Amino acid sequence: MNDIIWGKNSVNEALKGKRVLELYTYDKYYLDIAKREGIPYKEANKATLDKMVKGNHQGVAAKIFAYEPYALDEIIKKDNGLIIMLDGLEDPRNLGAIIRTADCVGADGIIYRKDRSVHVTPTVAKVASGALEYVKCAEVTNLVDTLKRLKEDGYWVVGTDASAKVDYTDIKYDMNVVIIIGSEGKGISRLVLKECDHIVKMPLLGHVNSLNASVAAGVMLYEVIRSRGK
Amino acid sequence: MNDIIWGKNSVNEALKGKRVLELYTYDKYYLDIAKREGIPYKEANKATLDKMVKGNHQGVAAKIFAYEPYALDEIIKKDNGLIIMLDGLEDPRNLGAIIRTADCVGADGIIYRKDRSVHVTPTVAKVASGALEYVKCAEVTNLVDTLKRLKEDGYWVVGTDASAKVDYTDIKYDMNVVIIIGSEGKGISRLVLKECDHIVKMPLLGHVNSLNASVAAGVMLYEVIRSRGK
Repeated sequence: MNDIIWGKNSVNEALKGKRVLELYTYDKYYLDIAKREGIPYKEANKATLDKMVKGNHQGVAAKIFAYEPYALDEIIKKDNGLIIMLDGLEDPRNLGAIIRTADCVGADGIIYRKDRSVHVTPTVAKVASGALEYVKCAEVTNLVDTLKRLKEDGYWVVGTDASAKVDYTDIKYDMNVVIIIGSEGKGISRLVLKECDHIVKMPLLGHVNSLNASVAAGVMLYEVIRSRGK
Repeated sequence: MNDIIWGKNSVNEALKGKRVLELYTYDKYYLDIAKREGIPYKEANKATLDKMVKGNHQGVAAKIFAYEPYALDEIIKKDNGLIIMLDGLEDPRNLGAIIRTADCVGADGIIYRKDRSVHVTPTVAKVASGALEYVKCAEVTNLVDTLKRLKEDGYWVVGTDASAKVDYTDIKYDMNVVIIIGSEGKGISRLVLKECDHIVKMPLLGHVNSLNASVAAGVMLYEVIRSRGK
């Protein structure tokens, strides 16, 4: 899963996305970043970089964690499909734990937005404890368009919201289903909620008004497979 | 929840337990630790420390996060009790998420070992998102002795283990119950498993052989309240 990239733009993007595993540079700007952020690095002079990469390195190269997302088509199924859609999740540890749970319940894949969302990073891979090898993650441009497409393909869309009337255990999940998990702070966004065929709630018997996102995902997904009699 | 402590022994213990919120010192040894570990600090000379604390500060004082655990008696109930016991959990983020879930399911409290276990720290409090105010945590010396005591008080003990024959949804949880959550790496220890009245398993339909500990706790606890008809 590791690639070598070079040039300031590429390396800057990878740094922003927390995907840099090791930096190779003689540029003080990048050496300072590596030291400040605890990124492993090797000082490399121009000759070494010239040998290392085939292009204009501008004084910096990096080994990065490269995840190749799946296409939406690769996670769509004819029967008993189970897809998890993340609406603006931000914490890589939540994504990692959800990937692990997705493997445990035999889900077909996870969908999240290409921008303004958590995506697969080394931290995610580590928290997923090996499950990333088995769970397909698809990045899409627009969640609402994707839900419309999935509904055409026979999927039912289920979201959770504290204001819902229906308990999450009152639904029979024996159809193709997309389970939507909202973001840590704001839950499911209004436009995505509008696409839901069912909006359900989990009992909250105490004082705080929501579960951790990866815990909520676990409870929902295990209810799906309980309801399916697995 | 914050206290001021002083003297090398006390401060060293608090540093080890990650409970230091701010250091006050002129001692280079502690200044270096603060800088290296990113702990907030104020340089304070001897006169300032003399004024700040009533005792022999040995050049260092600290504001610490102080959590006062509950006594076991305070979480025992007569009917429909629900206690969570953690067997050697290590990750503070898991404890934080479990405290949050414990509040959501209305559990009576959480028990963990005083030593060789995660305990309540500032990270735990943060991840618990306010739930620490409402969930009672009790620290005990010995889990097995504690389980024996709880059984005498009418509790049934339920643990999860991948080798179990019984599905976690096949039990009616309408009794006083202790749910045991095993450690991240090793699950429930042999001696604690021996005290279980029921050992149950959750379906694992994929390739990895366990859920994240806080996710497993969430799935189990929501099954308890589903089974109780809440």
